[in-house]
Amino acid sequence: MKQFRIAIINITGYIGAEVARLLYGHPGVQIISVTGRSEAGKKLGKVMPYLSDIDLVIEAEPREADLIFSSLPHKASAEAIAPLVKKGVKVVDLSADFRLKDAAEYPRWYDFTHPAVELLPKAVYGLTELHRSEVAPASLVANPGCYPTGAILALAPAVKAGLIQPDVIVDSKSGVSGAGRTPSLGTHYAEINESVSAYSLEGHRHIPEIVQELSAFHPDKPVSVTFLPHLVPMTRGILSSCYARLVEGKIAVSQQGIAELRQHYREFYKGEPFVKVVDIPPQTKQAWGSNLCLLHPTIDLRTNRLIVVSCIDNLVKGGAGQAIQNMNLMLGFPETTGLEALPVYP
Amino acid sequence: MKQFRIAIINITGYIGAEVARLLYGHPGVQIISVTGRSEAGKKLGKVMPYLSDIDLVIEAEPREADLIFSSLPHKASAEAIAPLVKKGVKVVDLSADFRLKDAAEYPRWYDFTHPAVELLPKAVYGLTELHRSEVAPASLVANPGCYPTGAILALAPAVKAGLIQPDVIVDSKSGVSGAGRTPSLGTHYAEINESVSAYSLEGHRHIPEIVQELSAFHPDKPVSVTFLPHLVPMTRGILSSCYARLVEGKIAVSQQGIAELRQHYREFYKGEPFVKVVDIPPQTKQAWGSNLCLLHPTIDLRTNRLIVVSCIDNLVKGGAGQAIQNMNLMLGFPETTGLEALPVYP
Amino acid sequence: MKQFRIAIINITGYIGAEVARLLYGHPGVQIISVTGRSEAGKKLGKVMPYLSDIDLVIEAEPREADLIFSSLPHKASAEAIAPLVKKGVKVVDLSADFRLKDAAEYPRWYDFTHPAVELLPKAVYGLTELHRSEVAPASLVANPGCYPTGAILALAPAVKAGLIQPDVIVDSKSGVSGAGRTPSLGTHYAEINESVSAYSLEGHRHIPEIVQELSAFHPDKPVSVTFLPHLVPMTRGILSSCYARLVEGKIAVSQQGIAELRQHYREFYKGEPFVKVVDIPPQTKQAWGSNLCLLHPTIDLRTNRLIVVSCIDNLVKGGAGQAIQNMNLMLGFPETTGLEALPVYP
Amino acid sequence: MKQFRIAIINITGYIGAEVARLLYGHPGVQIISVTGRSEAGKKLGKVMPYLSDIDLVIEAEPREADLIFSSLPHKASAEAIAPLVKKGVKVVDLSADFRLKDAAEYPRWYDFTHPAVELLPKAVYGLTELHRSEVAPASLVANPGCYPTGAILALAPAVKAGLIQPDVIVDSKSGVSGAGRTPSLGTHYAEINESVSAYSLEGHRHIPEIVQELSAFHPDKPVSVTFLPHLVPMTRGILSSCYARLVEGKIAVSQQGIAELRQHYREFYKGEPFVKVVDIPPQTKQAWGSNLCLLHPTIDLRTNRLIVVSCIDNLVKGGAGQAIQNMNLMLGFPETTGLEALPVYP
Repeated sequence: MKQFRIAIINITGYIGAEVARLLYGHPGVQIISVTGRSEAGKKLGKVMPYLSDIDLVIEAEPREADLIFSSLPHKASAEAIAPLVKKGVKVVDLSADFRLKDAAEYPRWYDFTHPAVELLPKAVYGLTELHRSEVAPASLVANPGCYPTGAILALAPAVKAGLIQPDVIVDSKSGVSGAGRTPSLGTHYAEINESVSAYSLEGHRHIPEIVQELSAFHPDKPVSVTFLPHLVPMTRGILSSCYARLVEGKIAVSQQGIAELRQHYREFYKGEPFVKVVDIPPQTKQAWGSNLCLLHPTIDLRTNRLIVVSCIDNLVKGGAGQAIQNMNLMLGFPETTGLEALPVYP
Repeated sequence: MKQFRIAIINITGYIGAEVARLLYGHPGVQIISVTGRSEAGKKLGKVMPYLSDIDLVIEAEPREADLIFSSLPHKASAEAIAPLVKKGVKVVDLSADFRLKDAAEYPRWYDFTHPAVELLPKAVYGLTELHRSEVAPASLVANPGCYPTGAILALAPAVKAGLIQPDVIVDSKSGVSGAGRTPSLGTHYAEINESVSAYSLEGHRHIPEIVQELSAFHPDKPVSVTFLPHLVPMTRGILSSCYARLVEGKIAVSQQGIAELRQHYREFYKGEPFVKVVDIPPQTKQAWGSNLCLLHPTIDLRTNRLIVVSCIDNLVKGGAGQAIQNMNLMLGFPETTGLEALPVYP
Repeated sequence: MKQFRIAIINITGYIGAEVARLLYGHPGVQIISVTGRSEAGKKLGKVMPYLSDIDLVIEAEPREADLIFSSLPHKASAEAIAPLVKKGVKVVDLSADFRLKDAAEYPRWYDFTHPAVELLPKAVYGLTELHRSEVAPASLVANPGCYPTGAILALAPAVKAGLIQPDVIVDSKSGVSGAGRTPSLGTHYAEINESVSAYSLEGHRHIPEIVQELSAFHPDKPVSVTFLPHLVPMTRGILSSCYARLVEGKIAVSQQGIAELRQHYREFYKGEPFVKVVDIPPQTKQAWGSNLCLLHPTIDLRTNRLIVVSCIDNLVKGGAGQAIQNMNLMLGFPETTGLEALPVYP
Repeated sequence: MKQFRIAIINITGYIGAEVARLLYGHPGVQIISVTGRSEAGKKLGKVMPYLSDIDLVIEAEPREADLIFSSLPHKASAEAIAPLVKKGVKVVDLSADFRLKDAAEYPRWYDFTHPAVELLPKAVYGLTELHRSEVAPASLVANPGCYPTGAILALAPAVKAGLIQPDVIVDSKSGVSGAGRTPSLGTHYAEINESVSAYSLEGHRHIPEIVQELSAFHPDKPVSVTFLPHLVPMTRGILSSCYARLVEGKIAVSQQGIAELRQHYREFYKGEPFVKVVDIPPQTKQAWGSNLCLLHPTIDLRTNRLIVVSCIDNLVKGGAGQAIQNMNLMLGFPETTGLEALPVYP
């Protein structure tokens, strides 16, 4: 039954650990190797007690496997993955290293020259709902960033149908786990609790992903994206509020138009197991611990503006869950395998 | 020394209680009467133990006073206040009842016909920084809503100078105390914790205030305002992220332009004791418990857009603190009296 | 496969909803009916959006089922359940109504005369680890309270082996979901956040359960229990710190004694799938969302005192999870079926 | 008016910063120098924006002052302070270095040999309520630890009157700011949020302080203290639940006895401005930001046990506030000067 062998590179971050948590319940795969540089040699359960039922020792290098997840930081991930991909191992990369098609974007946004440019054309951007047919045969999937996942799913139906002007604002509110597991003053409990802040006002690294994917639906002109992320005092969840001016004449600025807009979104995501278009504005908790993306599109009737609110769990649909959704396609499982659990509420 | 007698109508909500907390340390006034319908007859300290040093019994009706704060709900506040104002009592109203100049807005946004239309022209909108000279001689001050306070202070300098197009988006993130002290599922701990949500997508009641005040700086055409409030899991604080397109040619889209923009904001708020224009993006906690409004204006250089982030404590500058700031002007005290405490951090 | 039909009475509380969440992933049962008085007639997903994948309408009365969970309040539960049990339906009662063997305790602790005294001898106290053999054939299982679950599991090995004097202190810290889903000032976000409080200092209703179960191991003399619960600002989790004087000469007051104590606990819970005796003091989060109970027994070497720290998720092992653990035994499933998910962390 | 010059050594921790925040509002003193090794040379407001109204540059060494607060870590504090005390500067030390009378306790609990043993007899333990007359003339005050403050105030009246057996349990629940401002995995937001944990089960460093102070009231035999601290997900506050067996015949185990007990506590703390004996169990938030200690003594009538619940703000009465209370006595101010603000609620 547990037919495929899986390795996780860098399990000691939150995304790597979340891949392990979710795979533990997957009936068709077996985690056979986990790595983590600073903790190599220790039992996984000593370092992460909540994973103690996974009886493995953290290693320095991954063992041979059928598919490997990498949750290394950017640049390090490309360096570690490139030889594996060349040997024919299937890889889902949770770093940013293969998300951008244009190699020139890496020095610009990530301050490094890409060490494996030749792999960029092979890599598939793993926003499953938009690239399903490419993911299945892929040997290298670039798992999307947490913010782009929620933002692109929120805006793709409107951009593709030409409902909005190609100039969007994405205002995102994220839980703190998105900042990773390395302690810093910026993630120190007493600094973060009872506080909200905006960050990366000079331009966040997730911008080029959002631009790339939305512009693919708008060939005439790239979509302009103002993106502002905020840190809110919670552990998991991203709510993105997306704003854009409606193109005149495309959809009625009325209750009827709102109903049509929702219907359009429902058709766009018809059959999608993880995307729900909801009539009541969602809260991030309704996706907590699950692979769901909840979308609430509406129109500000006073100002002729599209507003779409999207909610995800940043570590699941915004990370480990989507990675497993992609793995399922790559290994031939039903897409929802191992991801069926309902959100945990309250 | 404690020369003026103050009454607080409806002390049993968070805003009324915060007025009491702050006035307790004010050297020139004495709280002589507090009311609260459902708790009348009880010692204040039994109902609100943290106010037990204020040795008063909650009453049904306020006693005669030099100045009265009302934190009744809308409509009830106008009804209670009107006879007091007519008798010549100075009043600071913390409800919405005298904020809007146009009586027709009340049925539209608040579902009631205004019971004291004749007082609307007398009422001064108490955003102190913008209406200081009117506040001092006023007998009726309409204290601004929490969201409008942060939003208007963030945008007024840009609108007045014609730097932006008259079409703004205000995306606000508020702590839960803004929803008041009456329990409901929407403020139930287990529902709110670890969750963010957007609300009032069909149009929040604070919109007409923002429109009214910003449009006063833009006589040709009313300013269009898309306003979306969000609830975040914390008690106090509002961060508003404000977006608008720059008018071409007014300010350079460059680092130099950003520096000029900040300089413009600093001049606009020169000498203001409670408004700080900051170079580092602020967090709401830096205003926690204080009357400060922190503003961080910048330009999204990629998209030619103004972004202003503002932070306040919704119960202080967004409520009780600003009310006392107005009271100080009305009674002839220095504007900062009783409001000098630094924010509480962490 | 989904061979048994299950009904849940009063799904609109957190415990009932958690039973539904967990059963959704159970391969051998099907939820066929859910009730909730005030919400009868509405789609489950309208009332509780996170359960929208369970496609049922809330009803006023449960349909015929193989096993019924009741999460009604006390007294109402006994009244609803009694006729069902008499008809031969298997029932797991999540209220307190069948936990206490002595009918006289009900008027004393719960202010009502028990309406179905004749069922008390039939009811099995469903702390599975201590009563497994009785649970399997039972038709009525009284699911333990959340606090007693953590406290009894923490102390049973020490009491049974006569290691401690029969006089214990249990100091428990609980998340707010334990207070249920009905809004009140005591569960209002702004009152609870950034605050800890003790409650029920005059005696909490869970005391007689703890006394009953621990005294069963100590036939000479009932065990004296001081129990003090505290509310902490989090949604899920109970940490209980248990204190008792060691009986002299039974175990060495030394590091060696601590090792022997842990060994004793490990043997006591040998083979238990949900109880882990851990060497590093646990945090409640390590059980979050799972049916685990983590135990850390130690000795205060300076004062000759046993200390045991236990951690559970109050809604899972302290409620719905343990109820399903019992259901599994009653229906012949492996005890862990549907409860295999790892805790959600962070 | 601002007649005394004050310096703060190591302002860059939470306790040092809190001393500054509170002193800012003190009418009789002026902060003239602040130090912080790693941040020396920077403007205070750059490092701690919420203190930006204090217009000072952080220095490496303190300037000459009338009184100096040290919030250096233990050992470093003694080393820095000793020469200052010898020069005749008044010092309030917020570290542990002068709290214990017995020099042999330092290697045992703090792993260092005391570098200024000769100063130990001169140092006054600054639990103001118990040592007021010694504090006023002191040149060196050892400010108590946060946990001991709440625990000793809770138990002193009972120990002194011989109401309880000299064997107490103190179970404390603390906010995370008590762990300081240095980031670590143990204070990382995502690890701490939604979790409670016990720590220092092998013996916390605050134990000898509690033993020393309580034993001073019980000359025959030292008081035995089991102390277990817990971390709860909030920023500020400590609630301590204290347990002890009653001495038979001293106080009635009845409602009448509880009333007498409270009366005894009220008399013990008669006239104390910062200690309140309350009839309703307190929550930590009722002391938030203030120098209050709330005490709720009661009797567990079922088990003949004293229970006392105490609440403080760990950074104020448990640190900076008490330090200023002591400073007021040392400089001849009324004890409450600068500490009059009500707690911030909610």
